[in-house]
Amino acid sequence: MAEWKNYDLLASAKELEAMAGKVDLTKAMAGEAGAERVAKYSVPMSNGLAYNFAAKQVDDEVLEVLDKMAKEAGLIEKFEELYNGAVINTGEKRLVLHQLTRGQLGKDVVADGVNKREFYVGEQTKIAEFANKVHAGEITNAAGEKFTTVVQIGIGGSDLGPRAMYLALENWAKANNTFKMEAKFISNVDPDDAADVLNKIDAAHSVFVLVSKSGTTLETLTNESLVKDALKKQGLDPSKHMIAVTSETSPLAKSSDYLAAFFMDDYIGGRYSSCSGVGGAVLSLAFGPEVFAKFLDGAAAEDKNSKNAELLKNPAMLDALIGVYERNVLGYPATAVLPYSQAMSRFPAHLQQMDMESNGKSVNRFGEPIDYVTGPLIFGEPGTNGQHSFYQLLHQGTDTVPMQFIGFRNNQAGLDIDIQGSTSQQKLCANVAAQIMAFACGKQDENKNKNFAGNRPSSIIIGDKLTPETLGALLAHFENKVMFQGFVWNLNSFDQEGVQLGKVLAKKVLAHETDGALKAYSDLLNI
Amino acid sequence: MAEWKNYDLLASAKELEAMAGKVDLTKAMAGEAGAERVAKYSVPMSNGLAYNFAAKQVDDEVLEVLDKMAKEAGLIEKFEELYNGAVINTGEKRLVLHQLTRGQLGKDVVADGVNKREFYVGEQTKIAEFANKVHAGEITNAAGEKFTTVVQIGIGGSDLGPRAMYLALENWAKANNTFKMEAKFISNVDPDDAADVLNKIDAAHSVFVLVSKSGTTLETLTNESLVKDALKKQGLDPSKHMIAVTSETSPLAKSSDYLAAFFMDDYIGGRYSSCSGVGGAVLSLAFGPEVFAKFLDGAAAEDKNSKNAELLKNPAMLDALIGVYERNVLGYPATAVLPYSQAMSRFPAHLQQMDMESNGKSVNRFGEPIDYVTGPLIFGEPGTNGQHSFYQLLHQGTDTVPMQFIGFRNNQAGLDIDIQGSTSQQKLCANVAAQIMAFACGKQDENKNKNFAGNRPSSIIIGDKLTPETLGALLAHFENKVMFQGFVWNLNSFDQEGVQLGKVLAKKVLAHETDGALKAYSDLLNI
Repeated sequence: MAEWKNYDLLASAKELEAMAGKVDLTKAMAGEAGAERVAKYSVPMSNGLAYNFAAKQVDDEVLEVLDKMAKEAGLIEKFEELYNGAVINTGEKRLVLHQLTRGQLGKDVVADGVNKREFYVGEQTKIAEFANKVHAGEITNAAGEKFTTVVQIGIGGSDLGPRAMYLALENWAKANNTFKMEAKFISNVDPDDAADVLNKIDAAHSVFVLVSKSGTTLETLTNESLVKDALKKQGLDPSKHMIAVTSETSPLAKSSDYLAAFFMDDYIGGRYSSCSGVGGAVLSLAFGPEVFAKFLDGAAAEDKNSKNAELLKNPAMLDALIGVYERNVLGYPATAVLPYSQAMSRFPAHLQQMDMESNGKSVNRFGEPIDYVTGPLIFGEPGTNGQHSFYQLLHQGTDTVPMQFIGFRNNQAGLDIDIQGSTSQQKLCANVAAQIMAFACGKQDENKNKNFAGNRPSSIIIGDKLTPETLGALLAHFENKVMFQGFVWNLNSFDQEGVQLGKVLAKKVLAHETDGALKAYSDLLNI
Repeated sequence: MAEWKNYDLLASAKELEAMAGKVDLTKAMAGEAGAERVAKYSVPMSNGLAYNFAAKQVDDEVLEVLDKMAKEAGLIEKFEELYNGAVINTGEKRLVLHQLTRGQLGKDVVADGVNKREFYVGEQTKIAEFANKVHAGEITNAAGEKFTTVVQIGIGGSDLGPRAMYLALENWAKANNTFKMEAKFISNVDPDDAADVLNKIDAAHSVFVLVSKSGTTLETLTNESLVKDALKKQGLDPSKHMIAVTSETSPLAKSSDYLAAFFMDDYIGGRYSSCSGVGGAVLSLAFGPEVFAKFLDGAAAEDKNSKNAELLKNPAMLDALIGVYERNVLGYPATAVLPYSQAMSRFPAHLQQMDMESNGKSVNRFGEPIDYVTGPLIFGEPGTNGQHSFYQLLHQGTDTVPMQFIGFRNNQAGLDIDIQGSTSQQKLCANVAAQIMAFACGKQDENKNKNFAGNRPSSIIIGDKLTPETLGALLAHFENKVMFQGFVWNLNSFDQEGVQLGKVLAKKVLAHETDGALKAYSDLLNI
């Protein structure tokens, strides 16, 4: 059993502390030495991706300490315990099995009398069969007509991940003739969210995927009712238009209100559920089950890299530890996620949940208060858009914000033209290369308003193209990065008690059981 | 003339420093005293909105110091100078006139021999006439058919603001029978962005709005070429499908490539251009010029509040100063913008640009390095979605993140149902009220994993409904807040030199004039 102890009790954390300010990127990244760093500080990932950390404030000596930390904190052993079925989610006393949805990393995991890998594969197979029948016109609406749209009803992990993945692959699927049907998403309890989607779809030819693990999520059940009501008003039978993705014990599981129900379980947290039926149903319906299978393969391949005990062969672990260095030693409060890919426009929002909900905590896994900072703020928008927005602060603001770039050599849709000697894709790539160097090296100018201090750290993951496989690999990379950081900080990254209090108070408001300021706000809002 | 001096030279800044930690919200917001704060700490805005700051870490004494600061820093005098046409943008030696697009706050401003208010109104009138002709079928495609879609091609301020405003009003317009045509947006130089939009529109019935003040923006000109190429391939004449919004001196101004050209000028920065033709063309085409006029009226009404020298009658100035207190005294690095309105889903992204590009700076308006922190990180997503995502960190993470909530008593679309005794809108409002109190007061629990420390500050702007008027007022509020903060920090909030270096380096990459690490990255990206 790996030993779980607080970050500030690690000997390597003390050593790391002594490294602060050691690497000045304006010097390290200049000249041919800079080119050597770019060649050397690169870790191959799966599916042709590579994690390049040349523009991070590390050198061989820092890496050595990070390697010590990986070993001292037992990161690989802890991951091994996780995928072999230990109760890693201590708060909720649960196994953590999302990696098992895409591959078998260790021993068979049997829980509740079931081989969980077989269970997840079984549900994927059921979803694939259902999707194939929808595409073949064997499962249709009541009039015998094919469904043309799929609408996911879910919130948080049942929305952000699947939505980000859908957007990431929509144009790839169109270019590769695997696009089956458009997907829309209803998440917010704000009734204008459902109204907007209902305004835009042809409900008679839409299939709705209701996603709630517990079957009790306020927003999702409310939106289900709203949608059912709208369908009925159009003379449609909701039970012929809706499937459920839920746990076997949920009230939705055996209901006759649904065309079909697919199952997940308590061992997959919402923010880690894109590879389960939560992502599987909508993505298989939109793009076909083969595309979803490729996405899972990509994630599985990257999971394997995360098992590697060699720091420089384990990109997620390395990324995690550099992040710890930036957060706990260099004191940076945030990380910007900046994919140079419009298709990844909502990937940062997904990482925002995955990271901040996992590691935004002030107690360790034993429920004891800790004395060091944990998860950073995560935000981001696609490049080059962000360049024309918040990059000003990243370049010249008073705080340093580490950056995570992502770039691809090729576009997805194949629509591109040469203008003034370069394609749009080349312009896009030129910009991300330029930004890394502008942030790292800066530029001296006598006019201080035009001066760039530089020494602003970034890494980049470079790939050939955003495909189901590379998307899966990217997802697994960040999931595993967050997991490793949670291990280093001695957190339980798999519960989210911080979301409970608001739910309790909201119920009181709706029951009119409030006083004091809560009643005053409720009155102002006419509740 | 107001005196411009650095924040840390203000006597009131020293006084403010002594206030740190004075207000503990877990106590201040508890019981009936909390209810009294909610009643008392509210400032009326225009259009039925109110800025409530009861859950901020301030009390009468802090407010008194903030009032001193407002006076010492001459905030009202500086605003007066700005709207009367002083060269406030010192870096670029320009006037700052975006408020003039929506109203005359002071004297006539004459620049370049032109009364600028008349100029802006004149362009709005031209746009209104054009839009009316499009809607009436007097301006059509070559086949004499009506346009059904408008596509904005622009990036940064030519994209984020107009897009956020479009999304904010789309369902309001549909519910109020003023919806004229769907709008789409192409921004990123990533060719997949244009490909995605071109995939989804009927180009033969689309009118494109090309927006670039200088007429030289790389992304926008590239996307223009890409779109023109696609139109030609469909046998269409691009000059019959495209209008330009640009400055009178730009290469686009007199081109026969466009159906029409509408003008802005150098006195309106991109991130402040939503009320100029940059927002006006696309919004007037989408919703009709009357709706855009109401939006301008809303902003103008709020601008008037920003002239008020009484701190507690000037919500933007108060918001700004509380933000300074949080940033410079309490040391919080970020602000979360959290509208409880799905229609405002991209409003945080617009504020992210507006704020971070304006005040993300390390030199004062005289180009001298400063010794205090300036603009915070801005990020956000609509509630309740965010509750199921990053709120965990906001509640229980190791950093305090001030929050700006926005809530409305009524939805836009009118589609709502009662489920278990409350409507969706009531559930939405109950959640924002509950969150404010959960953040402020927290909750003691022996299980530290379920403990909420509280004392996490927020404010809320409450309105009746998101309409063109209230949206305009919200926009003006935040524009003016950012302006006042820039005044306090002694910044030039109206240039953006931090975006230049990346542009220069990207050109070098495309010209293959690189060496060292920049060449190494370019090679990795196959440029």
